[in-house]
Amino acid sequence: MIIDIHGHYTTAPKALEEWRNRQIAAIGNPPAMPKASELKISDDEIRESIEANQLRLMRERGADLTIFSPRASFMAHHIGDFQVSSAWAALCNEMCFRVAELFPDHFIPAAMLPQSPGVDPATCIPELVKCVEEYGNVAVNLSPDPSGGHWTSPPLTDRSWYPIYEKLVEYDIPAMVHVSTSCNPCFHTTGAHYINGDTTAFMQLVQGDLFKDFPTLRMIIPHGGGAAPYHWGRYRGLAQELKKPLLTEHLLRNVYFDTCVYHQPGIDLLAQVIPVDNILFASEMIGAVRGIDPETGHYYDDTRRYIEANASLGAADKQKIYEGNARRVYPRLDAALKQRGK
Amino acid sequence: MIIDIHGHYTTAPKALEEWRNRQIAAIGNPPAMPKASELKISDDEIRESIEANQLRLMRERGADLTIFSPRASFMAHHIGDFQVSSAWAALCNEMCFRVAELFPDHFIPAAMLPQSPGVDPATCIPELVKCVEEYGNVAVNLSPDPSGGHWTSPPLTDRSWYPIYEKLVEYDIPAMVHVSTSCNPCFHTTGAHYINGDTTAFMQLVQGDLFKDFPTLRMIIPHGGGAAPYHWGRYRGLAQELKKPLLTEHLLRNVYFDTCVYHQPGIDLLAQVIPVDNILFASEMIGAVRGIDPETGHYYDDTRRYIEANASLGAADKQKIYEGNARRVYPRLDAALKQRGK
Repeated sequence: MIIDIHGHYTTAPKALEEWRNRQIAAIGNPPAMPKASELKISDDEIRESIEANQLRLMRERGADLTIFSPRASFMAHHIGDFQVSSAWAALCNEMCFRVAELFPDHFIPAAMLPQSPGVDPATCIPELVKCVEEYGNVAVNLSPDPSGGHWTSPPLTDRSWYPIYEKLVEYDIPAMVHVSTSCNPCFHTTGAHYINGDTTAFMQLVQGDLFKDFPTLRMIIPHGGGAAPYHWGRYRGLAQELKKPLLTEHLLRNVYFDTCVYHQPGIDLLAQVIPVDNILFASEMIGAVRGIDPETGHYYDDTRRYIEANASLGAADKQKIYEGNARRVYPRLDAALKQRGK
Repeated sequence: MIIDIHGHYTTAPKALEEWRNRQIAAIGNPPAMPKASELKISDDEIRESIEANQLRLMRERGADLTIFSPRASFMAHHIGDFQVSSAWAALCNEMCFRVAELFPDHFIPAAMLPQSPGVDPATCIPELVKCVEEYGNVAVNLSPDPSGGHWTSPPLTDRSWYPIYEKLVEYDIPAMVHVSTSCNPCFHTTGAHYINGDTTAFMQLVQGDLFKDFPTLRMIIPHGGGAAPYHWGRYRGLAQELKKPLLTEHLLRNVYFDTCVYHQPGIDLLAQVIPVDNILFASEMIGAVRGIDPETGHYYDDTRRYIEANASLGAADKQKIYEGNARRVYPRLDAALKQRGK
């Protein structure tokens, strides 16, 4: 089977965005704050938003199952305080849970966390617990920059993040390191901030020794690892100057890269540089780049085509990238699939 | 001949750093501020610092000439005010000028600018004028983030930068877009901030229409263009969504990438994705990554080896990357070489 480990609910019914706009408008005016119960979205509306979009494209492209999380650019942890983030995360996670309930063969949820700039990451744990224990989430998205492009939080190796890691280890679920929208005009959200977030997080992990403290913690760096694979020699050399072990030992027992790289040469480099055990199939569909590439006549984000066309990946490698690695990195996904006889 | 368009004077005699430390210590205490004349570095000291380092490696690797600018991580525009940056830039530029005077066959200078966060970029023009007219500089380094990792300046497409561009166009010299040290603990200077700076600047140029206003302005994105070539499909797709022309028309008449990518697969991708006319040989030697790659037994930053080993680049392509493109993108370099019968 083909598992896409990186999909967001970018096509949620408009009522969700309208609720969010009311919430934002009510910041500082508690009586106007909408209640969660005021969001009304029917199962049919959800079905329609999925069937016409992600599920249609999954069928066209041959993907079976997507690990599905709330729209990353809408997480916008920088808006309001922890209460605002918390109410918003709860709603968004409920939406992905409902998608997974409606399409259990095709979607399994991953949670956003109610992060808020300057707020102790430990405050995210109740939502995380709920999402794993009640909603069956198999992973979380963790933003290294809840400020939205101002980078005011400490590096991911800082001890303030440890309560989240302890919970991830306890549940044996991985975190995808994924920033949200940029409110810094220097950074285009999907063209600069996302990729910078990946590169930054990777280098934070190079600098630190996080996996000495958490040998079983697993992180996915999305968007093909930002700039890391392209500059793999730079990172190997910097690790060497920092007196770290080889990256294969220092990071690659714990760090994985997805295949959200939207052209053949990029995927070819990823497959050449990063061990096949550390590559996970993903498209981030429907996401940042929705158009058709005039050079190929196919969607930029139809990443399966690039993997199929890669000459160096054999059938066993592709099976790992499409399925095997995901079942290993997301054990709760594997358990859920086995429970369904898959 | 082989021209390395990206070298920094990272090996300047210690007295320069000591002067800088005195300057920093005197911020807020004008009587303690050192005078420029208090910096004493002899020609012999400069000769030694170059012959034992950059020039030795250039000879070993077969590079003839380096476009030489002050140490990028020491520009540190965020320290002090414009006066502090101005005094420091003047000294650093004088050092590179002296190197070029002592080794005219091997070094030609490029200037750092006295940028300062929140200060009008137009204030940099007198130093720029001096460096071109008196010191024979053939380019400048322009930081998109004088704050040093807080990204408080507007994007490079903002009109506040235009006075600098007007002067660059008047002199027909290019700008290398190069950040300095990071004082944000999220960003490792050479592992995250440099690469993010490149990616960010590239995306700012994708979003804007700068080269409509300055059709002859040229910019070099160093470090192989940050993440841009690896994610070239993403950038082509984002340009398409932003209703921009194809990147070849929108940017590649004005934007160039250097070869500071420290492993074979990265250089191979660069050469595959970016037109050969837009690639300029560089090593950033002696720079961020100084070690020997245990996988090859050679220096990571000996980038000529990767270009030589690339199977798709023919002799004419290599001549462009090593020399032809540099002479076209840096006309004042070309003129200086011709004057010397080269």
